[in-house]
Amino acid sequence: MANSKYILAKERVLRDPILNFIRVEDQTILDLINSSEVQRLRRVKALGVANLVFHGGEHSRFQHSLGVYEITRRMITHFDVNRPTFWNHDEDIVVMAAGLLHDVGHGAYSHTFEHIFGTNHEQFTQDIILNPDTQVNQILSARDKDLPAKVASVIAKTYENRLVISMISSQIDADRMDYLLRDAYYTGAEYGKFDIERIMEMMIPTDDGIIFNEAGVHTVEDYIISRYQMYIQVYFHPVSRGMEVVLENLLSRAQAMYNEKLEPELFFSTIAKVFEVGKNISTEDYLKLDDGVFTTAFSIWRDSKDPVLSDLSRRFLDRIPFKSIPYSESKLRSLEAEVEAGGFDKFYYSGTNNANNIPYKSYSNRNKKNKPIQFAIGGDLENQKGLSSLSTIVKALDDDEITDNRFFFPKELLETDDNLKKIYATSRRSI
Amino acid sequence: MANSKYILAKERVLRDPILNFIRVEDQTILDLINSSEVQRLRRVKALGVANLVFHGGEHSRFQHSLGVYEITRRMITHFDVNRPTFWNHDEDIVVMAAGLLHDVGHGAYSHTFEHIFGTNHEQFTQDIILNPDTQVNQILSARDKDLPAKVASVIAKTYENRLVISMISSQIDADRMDYLLRDAYYTGAEYGKFDIERIMEMMIPTDDGIIFNEAGVHTVEDYIISRYQMYIQVYFHPVSRGMEVVLENLLSRAQAMYNEKLEPELFFSTIAKVFEVGKNISTEDYLKLDDGVFTTAFSIWRDSKDPVLSDLSRRFLDRIPFKSIPYSESKLRSLEAEVEAGGFDKFYYSGTNNANNIPYKSYSNRNKKNKPIQFAIGGDLENQKGLSSLSTIVKALDDDEITDNRFFFPKELLETDDNLKKIYATSRRSI
Amino acid sequence: MANSKYILAKERVLRDPILNFIRVEDQTILDLINSSEVQRLRRVKALGVANLVFHGGEHSRFQHSLGVYEITRRMITHFDVNRPTFWNHDEDIVVMAAGLLHDVGHGAYSHTFEHIFGTNHEQFTQDIILNPDTQVNQILSARDKDLPAKVASVIAKTYENRLVISMISSQIDADRMDYLLRDAYYTGAEYGKFDIERIMEMMIPTDDGIIFNEAGVHTVEDYIISRYQMYIQVYFHPVSRGMEVVLENLLSRAQAMYNEKLEPELFFSTIAKVFEVGKNISTEDYLKLDDGVFTTAFSIWRDSKDPVLSDLSRRFLDRIPFKSIPYSESKLRSLEAEVEAGGFDKFYYSGTNNANNIPYKSYSNRNKKNKPIQFAIGGDLENQKGLSSLSTIVKALDDDEITDNRFFFPKELLETDDNLKKIYATSRRSI
Amino acid sequence: MANSKYILAKERVLRDPILNFIRVEDQTILDLINSSEVQRLRRVKALGVANLVFHGGEHSRFQHSLGVYEITRRMITHFDVNRPTFWNHDEDIVVMAAGLLHDVGHGAYSHTFEHIFGTNHEQFTQDIILNPDTQVNQILSARDKDLPAKVASVIAKTYENRLVISMISSQIDADRMDYLLRDAYYTGAEYGKFDIERIMEMMIPTDDGIIFNEAGVHTVEDYIISRYQMYIQVYFHPVSRGMEVVLENLLSRAQAMYNEKLEPELFFSTIAKVFEVGKNISTEDYLKLDDGVFTTAFSIWRDSKDPVLSDLSRRFLDRIPFKSIPYSESKLRSLEAEVEAGGFDKFYYSGTNNANNIPYKSYSNRNKKNKPIQFAIGGDLENQKGLSSLSTIVKALDDDEITDNRFFFPKELLETDDNLKKIYATSRRSI
Repeated sequence: MANSKYILAKERVLRDPILNFIRVEDQTILDLINSSEVQRLRRVKALGVANLVFHGGEHSRFQHSLGVYEITRRMITHFDVNRPTFWNHDEDIVVMAAGLLHDVGHGAYSHTFEHIFGTNHEQFTQDIILNPDTQVNQILSARDKDLPAKVASVIAKTYENRLVISMISSQIDADRMDYLLRDAYYTGAEYGKFDIERIMEMMIPTDDGIIFNEAGVHTVEDYIISRYQMYIQVYFHPVSRGMEVVLENLLSRAQAMYNEKLEPELFFSTIAKVFEVGKNISTEDYLKLDDGVFTTAFSIWRDSKDPVLSDLSRRFLDRIPFKSIPYSESKLRSLEAEVEAGGFDKFYYSGTNNANNIPYKSYSNRNKKNKPIQFAIGGDLENQKGLSSLSTIVKALDDDEITDNRFFFPKELLETDDNLKKIYATSRRSI
Repeated sequence: MANSKYILAKERVLRDPILNFIRVEDQTILDLINSSEVQRLRRVKALGVANLVFHGGEHSRFQHSLGVYEITRRMITHFDVNRPTFWNHDEDIVVMAAGLLHDVGHGAYSHTFEHIFGTNHEQFTQDIILNPDTQVNQILSARDKDLPAKVASVIAKTYENRLVISMISSQIDADRMDYLLRDAYYTGAEYGKFDIERIMEMMIPTDDGIIFNEAGVHTVEDYIISRYQMYIQVYFHPVSRGMEVVLENLLSRAQAMYNEKLEPELFFSTIAKVFEVGKNISTEDYLKLDDGVFTTAFSIWRDSKDPVLSDLSRRFLDRIPFKSIPYSESKLRSLEAEVEAGGFDKFYYSGTNNANNIPYKSYSNRNKKNKPIQFAIGGDLENQKGLSSLSTIVKALDDDEITDNRFFFPKELLETDDNLKKIYATSRRSI
Repeated sequence: MANSKYILAKERVLRDPILNFIRVEDQTILDLINSSEVQRLRRVKALGVANLVFHGGEHSRFQHSLGVYEITRRMITHFDVNRPTFWNHDEDIVVMAAGLLHDVGHGAYSHTFEHIFGTNHEQFTQDIILNPDTQVNQILSARDKDLPAKVASVIAKTYENRLVISMISSQIDADRMDYLLRDAYYTGAEYGKFDIERIMEMMIPTDDGIIFNEAGVHTVEDYIISRYQMYIQVYFHPVSRGMEVVLENLLSRAQAMYNEKLEPELFFSTIAKVFEVGKNISTEDYLKLDDGVFTTAFSIWRDSKDPVLSDLSRRFLDRIPFKSIPYSESKLRSLEAEVEAGGFDKFYYSGTNNANNIPYKSYSNRNKKNKPIQFAIGGDLENQKGLSSLSTIVKALDDDEITDNRFFFPKELLETDDNLKKIYATSRRSI
Repeated sequence: MANSKYILAKERVLRDPILNFIRVEDQTILDLINSSEVQRLRRVKALGVANLVFHGGEHSRFQHSLGVYEITRRMITHFDVNRPTFWNHDEDIVVMAAGLLHDVGHGAYSHTFEHIFGTNHEQFTQDIILNPDTQVNQILSARDKDLPAKVASVIAKTYENRLVISMISSQIDADRMDYLLRDAYYTGAEYGKFDIERIMEMMIPTDDGIIFNEAGVHTVEDYIISRYQMYIQVYFHPVSRGMEVVLENLLSRAQAMYNEKLEPELFFSTIAKVFEVGKNISTEDYLKLDDGVFTTAFSIWRDSKDPVLSDLSRRFLDRIPFKSIPYSESKLRSLEAEVEAGGFDKFYYSGTNNANNIPYKSYSNRNKKNKPIQFAIGGDLENQKGLSSLSTIVKALDDDEITDNRFFFPKELLETDDNLKKIYATSRRSI
């Protein structure tokens, strides 16, 4: 398949519980897997803090990255069957490398981290691929000096071949398919399953991205529903969002203390950098930040003399989530006032987290990721229909935003604050 | 079931991919789960370094502990059905707590850690349960001041009720059943599966431990075979043992440097304690050591001026295992000499790791854990037969030791040392 | 649980691939399973002719009946947990027997059979339960002389306890849950799976039927979606409907020949009865009609001198389905004319089959089976909400009929009739 | 892959619960699947009467035949990867057709049928392939006039290419792998599962048959164990053997009555033939005998005036198995005398059934099917080792016969015959 010069004498086969086997036939892919930057992903949990709700979900971004690579590899096989000679095998290494590396810029607790420090993991991914000091860059460059730029541009969604971009980033891409199946397997969320093999069977490559054979309508429908259910039941779970707010407030407090030079000994070298320079952190220093570095810091901070830092660290390490209620913007002030009245600093002991997702959009817009899913009716590429026109269920989800805006506060307030207690009792999970 | 005073108003149900649901009906169990010491187990991987070979196996001792608790809970239910009125429900909380807490003394990379620092995780487990400063102790004492001692004695295998001990520690106990199924699920090792529900159905409680209904012979046989296969294929895998040797040598080098006061700044507070006092580490300090603390240290050590510490840290973090060959004691000196001849310090760049296990023993011995499995023929408790006399396959495994003694060295030597290269090529995995 | 007088000394446990185990603890249930009328169901396929499309779906109504029994048994257990003391255990035997016997009146290829002969399987079920000559009746009567009438009235939906009726016949009853899971397992239709254990956990018994705990909304939603997908993809598959039309026309031709006394030797004793008396067939004679009797008749008929009977028998036995296109009533005449023009008797070589189903109805109507699914908000029985108001997806399916009206004809016409060929090519499965 | 002239314009994909998908790319294979002789296999259960013990096991030989075909197809793919250019693709159609057709000569309840009538299903398979009147023969001949003889000689194990024979008939062939997995799936026997994908990955084709890569030792070991467990727990189950004895005695009684011209009206045309001519039955008449023909006959015979024929028919249809005890030849006479003493004709109301199997043989013998499994050590074809020398468990099973000789009698005797009752109570399943 790929450039024969780089085919391994002996294929490597990795057992994978979700995809059964990950097959590595290309020397460059093997080298990338073994690179320091990709190995680092073993130390970054894929689900952030969601394992604190779904205790099975402790898998890392490393195995997810292997999975995305494997799916791109299989997609190519199906392209060759379903539309012989269409796919240009020179692109194999570009898309497989992009699949493997698409998350290489992810850090610990990315969502919260980015919010606090103003960083962007997709930018870090591109930086790592383009930085000549990384092993990843050196491996790619050794094969073809243009390869880093090509792979980075796939991540940036500026690569000239839109089909390649769509394999990594579209409504049904290798990334989403892997994380949905993988997260469902590890959390035990049965409803997250769908038939990935059948979906890949139905894929037809076109210049404009992947479209699907009409025979796959119900399999794709099932995928959209699974995605919807995973968002509602796992990704937006109020308790893990309650842990995210604890984490966010904890990092805010640490930043404030660092700025004020309070207890500087709490900040050992690795962790100090990001508080010092924030989003201007170097690639090298950024790559040192993994889940373990943060929990190690929290463990040290738990013994801080600062009661807020100490207490929030304890809440995070011992899994004591903030409780939550739905709120509207007009009520925010009075809710914060209640937190203060209860004896807590509203800045560090409350917060909002607004979950929002659009399950499926039937019309195209600037965000290429959400381009609608098209089907070739009777296998005819000229006769395409959109998913919404073929599926009653998907049509129902079309543009129907899932929204869940929540206000978070310490659970102790449920003992003392009658208003919060009452709202809490009557407002169970609305999504 | 349990003491009604402690029954939760609302049962907690945790989704678990292996056991489907973990049910918590008892307030004390819920409090123990939420304790700091049990939550810490989320930060200790169940399989140590084996996830570096089986990338799916990244689950923590926390979820394993929940699983062991749940299995003890279900065993009790089956006892009540299979031998009504025999089980004394006052023991419920003792055995369920022992199941939940049996691993609470485990630290990061326990096997290697204990080898280097001379500690013992079962001793730490008892210390944590008995230490009045731990949350675990306080929760147990609040219910019954004798409870900590009872639970600790189950761990110590000195508790007066041998049936309770056998539920946590015997040939077919809650601990082994959970870890075999859990490790198989997460690594994707299909052959590790067995029918736990059927095994529990066949359990008959006796004063001397659990015996089985004859109808369960083949289900139990299948369990023994699964266990055998997990040892051979997962637990004794040479590559993860190659990573253990790297880790062991790395910690040895760090200890030497600490002793010689070289680069003391490399040892931040949390990690310094254990190098300072070794096995005399306090329970409080011990509880701060988790996987993340070690990888954080390794990440700092990677930048050490000491070439050995730096290099071994890199090998561990970037997953560069030592290679291995089988060896006999008489060849050890000359093999070490080859390592030296290749330019490596034999002390830090070689090592041995001898895997050894007895799949099944048909006769009793002092080690209660290996008491043979007995069956009630025709359900008659007076007419018992041992598993080996009922199963051809198990008889074959009877006392047949699995042994795999290996010598480990840097893979670079395969390039330069013709002797090692030749042995390596002809001596693939012997087990 | 059940009347202790009838508790078996030794519980029988049957391995079941879908529900894991079927447990029989009651002597009456065991006797019913072993009755001639229930054993007969082994010779009646659950899916009629659908195994001719999904080759895995060859399971019988016997195992489905065991499954329905088992689910009612488990429901009772959950009732006791979720609403202690509410369920009256005198009803155990009524509902478990009704679950086991609900399909006992099903004959071979029921749908087609009923259409041709004017019979009704629910009526036969009641007849078999009430007829003092059946083993089923005798077993029930021996326990309680009123029991046959009670069980039959559950089937008839006239039993006074509506909760009992709803366990066998409602939106989420034991019957539907078993057949959806069972049909999905055997056909390999992954999308048909849902979490039956979780659904049963959420059940709260009320005088008016089963309602659900709010926490189960998404699990129930997933069940409704699975049901929808099974209808669209399995139950309404055009090819198995093409085999049904062949079967219907074949039986019509046989009836015509029987009426005209043509080749009477083709009708051996067992099969002759139903052609003789039609829907007035006695219970005794009806019980002799199973799948094998019909295929044996078809095998004999294949050698008939009558070209239509012979040919249609061949088409059925060798699986040569009629092809189909969507049609509207106004086009029916001209389509039949085309069949005639192609040299086929329209009466025996064409037909219509109109698939129609309403996935979910949000409002109550006379058909109790479709009473909407209610949830107790926050577990409060007084505060109920309907599923449609809690689920975007179900709301979308609300009253949205699935309709697929098709006209069937011999596939030979696709070679000769340009109009049919063109419609066929452009009108792939519309559902 | 196959001859391009016969490649279908559109691949057919059949959903299969065991192998996920059955793919048909060759016109000849599609035509064979649609032939009357292969479709007939839908009406012959794969497990004979074992579904009367494992109620899930109701699948037909038709789906098993599709599975065997699919596995041969996949084997070829792996041959091409593991030993490029070795496999001659002209053999594709030979081995795929042999896989699909290997069971085409199976009749209803083959084991019992062959015993009573002296027939041989492998001979019928060859006859059907070679008989110019069958559709199967015509389809094969139309492609290549030598093809029927080639395919039949694969069944006869005389085909010149031993590799092709070994794919259908050897220790690890497509036939056994499919039936073990399929029977395990449908009966719910979890222990019957093994990793077929991995086994196929390890296959290396040689002139002398398939050998395996050393890396597959434990996967193959697991297969041998699964096979062993399926024999002990499913195939040799005493209760299904008790039904076989009923069936055998029933057919014996029918033959005696046919010979004596008693109630000739009980023998309708289809069934009469085999009683008339026995093993000289024509291929055409033989092909009409399926499960349904026999159960239809039994249903008619149940109303016979002959009490033995009537009673045995009832026992078979209503599943009333003979009970059994182990016996030795020396006790046979006295056991039969007890049956007579109990008021039953020993000829029709007793019988023996001797289950016997050798799980694995480490040495070659005339029976090619049992040639030992060889491994290429380090992938070196010149350095082969046998499975027994690589696996402790398999070595234990080596030549260890599974034997279970049983004497069968009506369960009524357990009420009246104290000796039988006592032996029965103390001699539970010995295997």
